[in-house]
Amino acid sequence: MLQIAALEKLVHELNRLPGIGPKTAQRLAYFILKSPKQYSEQLSESLLRVQAEVKSCPECFNYTDLDLCRYCQDPHRQSESLCVVEEPSDILRIEASGVFRGKYHVLHGAISPLEGIGPQDLKIQELIQKVNVGLAGQGPAIKEIILALDADLEGDTTVLFLAKNLANKGLKISRIAHGVPIGSDIDYIDDRTMGRALENRVEL
Amino acid sequence: MLQIAALEKLVHELNRLPGIGPKTAQRLAYFILKSPKQYSEQLSESLLRVQAEVKSCPECFNYTDLDLCRYCQDPHRQSESLCVVEEPSDILRIEASGVFRGKYHVLHGAISPLEGIGPQDLKIQELIQKVNVGLAGQGPAIKEIILALDADLEGDTTVLFLAKNLANKGLKISRIAHGVPIGSDIDYIDDRTMGRALENRVEL
Repeated sequence: MLQIAALEKLVHELNRLPGIGPKTAQRLAYFILKSPKQYSEQLSESLLRVQAEVKSCPECFNYTDLDLCRYCQDPHRQSESLCVVEEPSDILRIEASGVFRGKYHVLHGAISPLEGIGPQDLKIQELIQKVNVGLAGQGPAIKEIILALDADLEGDTTVLFLAKNLANKGLKISRIAHGVPIGSDIDYIDDRTMGRALENRVEL
Repeated sequence: MLQIAALEKLVHELNRLPGIGPKTAQRLAYFILKSPKQYSEQLSESLLRVQAEVKSCPECFNYTDLDLCRYCQDPHRQSESLCVVEEPSDILRIEASGVFRGKYHVLHGAISPLEGIGPQDLKIQELIQKVNVGLAGQGPAIKEIILALDADLEGDTTVLFLAKNLANKGLKISRIAHGVPIGSDIDYIDDRTMGRALENRVEL
């Protein structure tokens, strides 16, 4: 439609980004074209740089540009408490709360039979291995596992699978609480969240 | 916050795009990181390519990768009718309507005293020149000018300026109509649009 091959190609590539539809992609492409040449160059360079420099932490599978990620190499963080998340970006949300001072383990997804993602496609074997190594005294002992997975079908399925596979190892396993978000109006809470909030009520 | 320089840089560059806030930029950066390496490379390459290949049409200042843009070189389009727009992307909207069969002139912005953009920063002198060349018989004669500028303060200011500077040249000058959008509910129309729709009512 644009009849300019280079512009159409850029719109096509931008359109592949999540939440960027064809119209937004077109607006972004025109913005880039209107911007000084340096902007394209800097964005282009940073795209290549991020793929070249950022790698997976061999311990927890978080993204890092170091040999070991900043959480894994931090001696002030408790190794006995492990928080399991689906994506590296989830760690930022948990860190922002300032409540957790243990270490992390990133699964890089959740079990989803519909999308053909099974336990073997995730960092689940590595998690069980990490627990076993601790139990055998060949690594830091893990006492508690907090599952901070999404509150959806895939998250629920993964929680069940992990709970089963980590059972009988003397671990304290918990899942983060689901309920009414802080600051929200009860009037606007959906049925299932309210049901969960009532079931998991906390005694005062 | 991310503590990974390459990732922070990418988030920073994405954040400069219009409508992409810090949170969206972060989500996009994580998506890019999770994608196969080819995606980064293709997006990176298309950014450089668009700046290298796309240039301004010397006639109408639309974007093109040809010597003359596709509208200017199309012999089936009428040269006597000229549609003036603010941005190259506006041409796509007008073409999509299928109503206009003349040629275009892109101002590359609108007069905005607040942002320090005056007539000399836009392709206004070039427009007047084009009209004068036609009048002198040294180029295609222009009989009608349609101003398809935005319905905001800057658009209004530019319309006034152009109307004044193109007056007394025997041209038919018009501005696209403002009114109730097709398919919309009268209940949701703002006061000023409704005022304009009433003022510009069309006799049946």
